[in-house]
Amino acid sequence: MSFQQLDDLGRKLETLEHALAILGADEATHMAVGGGTKRAEAMSGLAGMLHRQSTAPIIADWIAAAESEDLNDDQRIAVAEFRRHYTNLTCLPAEFVERLTRERLRCEQLWRDLRPKNDWVGFKPALEGIVTLAREESALRAEVLGLDPYDAMIEQHDPGSRAADIAPVFDELKTFLRDFVPHVLAVQEERLAKRPLKQLSGTYPIEKQRDLGLAVMGAIGFDFTHGSLSISHHPFCGGVPSDVRITTRYKTSDFLSALMGVLHETGHALYEQNLPHDWGHWPLGKPRGIAVHESQSLFVEKQLGRNPAFWCWALPMVEKHLGESWSIDDILPHVHRVERGLIRVDADEVTYPLHVILRFELEQDFIAGRLEVTDLPEAWDAKMRDYLGLSTLDNPADGPMQDPHWASAAFGYFPSYTLGAMMAAQQWAAFEKMHPAANDEIAKGKFDAVNAWRCENIWSQASRYTTPDLLERATGEKLKASYFINHLKVRYGV
Amino acid sequence: MSFQQLDDLGRKLETLEHALAILGADEATHMAVGGGTKRAEAMSGLAGMLHRQSTAPIIADWIAAAESEDLNDDQRIAVAEFRRHYTNLTCLPAEFVERLTRERLRCEQLWRDLRPKNDWVGFKPALEGIVTLAREESALRAEVLGLDPYDAMIEQHDPGSRAADIAPVFDELKTFLRDFVPHVLAVQEERLAKRPLKQLSGTYPIEKQRDLGLAVMGAIGFDFTHGSLSISHHPFCGGVPSDVRITTRYKTSDFLSALMGVLHETGHALYEQNLPHDWGHWPLGKPRGIAVHESQSLFVEKQLGRNPAFWCWALPMVEKHLGESWSIDDILPHVHRVERGLIRVDADEVTYPLHVILRFELEQDFIAGRLEVTDLPEAWDAKMRDYLGLSTLDNPADGPMQDPHWASAAFGYFPSYTLGAMMAAQQWAAFEKMHPAANDEIAKGKFDAVNAWRCENIWSQASRYTTPDLLERATGEKLKASYFINHLKVRYGV
Repeated sequence: MSFQQLDDLGRKLETLEHALAILGADEATHMAVGGGTKRAEAMSGLAGMLHRQSTAPIIADWIAAAESEDLNDDQRIAVAEFRRHYTNLTCLPAEFVERLTRERLRCEQLWRDLRPKNDWVGFKPALEGIVTLAREESALRAEVLGLDPYDAMIEQHDPGSRAADIAPVFDELKTFLRDFVPHVLAVQEERLAKRPLKQLSGTYPIEKQRDLGLAVMGAIGFDFTHGSLSISHHPFCGGVPSDVRITTRYKTSDFLSALMGVLHETGHALYEQNLPHDWGHWPLGKPRGIAVHESQSLFVEKQLGRNPAFWCWALPMVEKHLGESWSIDDILPHVHRVERGLIRVDADEVTYPLHVILRFELEQDFIAGRLEVTDLPEAWDAKMRDYLGLSTLDNPADGPMQDPHWASAAFGYFPSYTLGAMMAAQQWAAFEKMHPAANDEIAKGKFDAVNAWRCENIWSQASRYTTPDLLERATGEKLKASYFINHLKVRYGV
Repeated sequence: MSFQQLDDLGRKLETLEHALAILGADEATHMAVGGGTKRAEAMSGLAGMLHRQSTAPIIADWIAAAESEDLNDDQRIAVAEFRRHYTNLTCLPAEFVERLTRERLRCEQLWRDLRPKNDWVGFKPALEGIVTLAREESALRAEVLGLDPYDAMIEQHDPGSRAADIAPVFDELKTFLRDFVPHVLAVQEERLAKRPLKQLSGTYPIEKQRDLGLAVMGAIGFDFTHGSLSISHHPFCGGVPSDVRITTRYKTSDFLSALMGVLHETGHALYEQNLPHDWGHWPLGKPRGIAVHESQSLFVEKQLGRNPAFWCWALPMVEKHLGESWSIDDILPHVHRVERGLIRVDADEVTYPLHVILRFELEQDFIAGRLEVTDLPEAWDAKMRDYLGLSTLDNPADGPMQDPHWASAAFGYFPSYTLGAMMAAQQWAAFEKMHPAANDEIAKGKFDAVNAWRCENIWSQASRYTTPDLLERATGEKLKASYFINHLKVRYGV
């Protein structure tokens, strides 16, 4: 039976995926510094094995045969995901993949080297090469998938999302935020004039912050029999569903930094830990995509973790672990701090979407051939001034050189961040409508109901539906800007 | 060129070995408890890939062709090791390997389950099955290797060592120890009567013990850019040469326990870290075998770490890190404590060889068909009473059920422990003869000269020579019991 052959293949691939996931997490947490060269060799060797085994021509035959077998519902959609996965993995000629891999590695290395030097001129030719390749890739994928070229790129990160659906929602959000950001800043200034910011004392030993983080993770539902928390330079969620590795980094001067990292990664971890175990070795059992994953991390970080109700419960824990007493009115100005800035990864939830929309617009222009790299600094600067009133012309390192995504040829990835934020707001609204005691429960540290809702509607569904379908089935509606806009208005507008 | 194909093969296998080594170390240190099932699946999948790729029939052709190619010296011995390795991996029929693997896993599981229950009757039939298989394995290997059956088993763990060479050396040691153990115990009693044992205070926080361990490791030569120390249930040395993972476990009541574990594993680690890097992906670049590896761990633990000179240097470090002041005369009775006991792994360096010689004799009888499992409890007990004056007849859990080796079908492994101890003593004697200031330097915490000697004579040689040849080239003599006997006499006899 061909389905059985796909099932066996899945188990074989899972072995290599497991090794890559744990080696990757280990590299960022426990590896000795001198272990990097051999680790890179081992991981690229394993990745090569995984790619060869995932793209073997015989798999096409198994999939075709399985499609006409008498299967149950789960198996049928599992085969469909096998096909989707296989098509996306094999639709580029081997020669092109090699060229892309080589150029991408070169451009990434150059980016790491030249960004700190603010050297746009040195970086430009490499990025031009990548943009050319990305246009080629998107055309090749578009042809096979029957999609527009940019949509074919989005599809790699966020299956089912289309630029034509995203654009009007992002436009509505952009129009709102252009006026809302100055309003929020004025409100914030006025509030701080009345009640000056209570400074963090800056005396938070790492061990105590870690214990606080562990306590919060556990309460929110992280399963410590299937995961752990450690330290890395950048917070991440890695490992495998049976052993999810999340990390944060600590500043002894500021406990919010590490704790917010823990909350965000716990959101990712809950998704991984609660995927359907029996499907773990099928593409169907994987998380739906980057946007949905981000909706889960932002759900915990923003919808729960920056919710004032959350702090009713969390502040006594802060006091218990760090020995510092805070009132809600004193902590919220830190948790809800809004600031116009040049850097996407440092942005708060109000200004962040403008960073993303800027990139979403520019990368569509790149793929469509309407924008060339040589014009990027001006195009970037024009939008930065328009959306956030900031200029980056003299500072490309904090402008178009700030992110690694384009250097890695990851076009179509950026929208996921803001799609995730919007979906999280829409999910919370749907949950709260069904469950009016939502905020009261959060204030008591009770996360059972909200987790049960997410488990039923998101986590247990894995890759059963496209991103838009998953959201619509969970919330009863297509993606709408209004939920996120309302969320921002309530939290920041008054 | 066929040598190039072997070289490429080595790099491919190294990738899987790397993954297995890091996943194995991670399992014992950082894995979440619930991650075990998936980890076992992943590791057995990778081990299967490694086995299939290491035993592909084409490799025989490459080796044969490479043997007639024009190669340099290193390449020639590399090919010879490829052949030795390949022959040992492929000399058992696949059907037999599967049967052995299945029975071994079953017997190991049974051992883990039944040893705590002291259930010899339940365990016996499984061990009988293993002994039958081990006889079959040794006959199959003997045929291919042209060795005696038991030697063919030793060869798997300790290439080049032969029972006929080991037996007279072990006999000399046994004869000496039977009289020496009672003598040592009497001397010890007399000494303690004159100067009562200073008790450990039992207040040693783990973090401080860890810092002490790290300081000692660093001074002895552990390279922290290529390795680290963490915690596990049983101390081990794992990982890969570019990233050696050693572990210890801590009791807050006793700092010597963890520190001696650190010293032992640091000995293993120095060997791994100083293997020739360029050969890392060839069998030639691997450590020579278990006996040589054990000689390196015991060199650091016993020859250095229990040397009174070592404590001249170490006690101020103990005081610095643990805040407890000790004199040499007070610490040495702890470090040199000798006790007759039933358990091999708990034994001191004086009584330990008797545990090993007992097993060496019994497993030769097993393989030769002179001993059956049903007679093992009596045979074990008779030797225990003869060598150590202790009886285990009513307590098989602490008698023939105490070790996992035989349940795992690892016959020919036990001699390595005592061969290692003897080789370490012979190495130290050879070094001290060339370098009379050896003890003075140890007392000052200077390990450069002793490490340089070991690097030149042991570490950098990797698998270039058989175990006996390696020792003879390093020390100028074949293995002799007298060096170890003298070492024990000087340290424990007066």
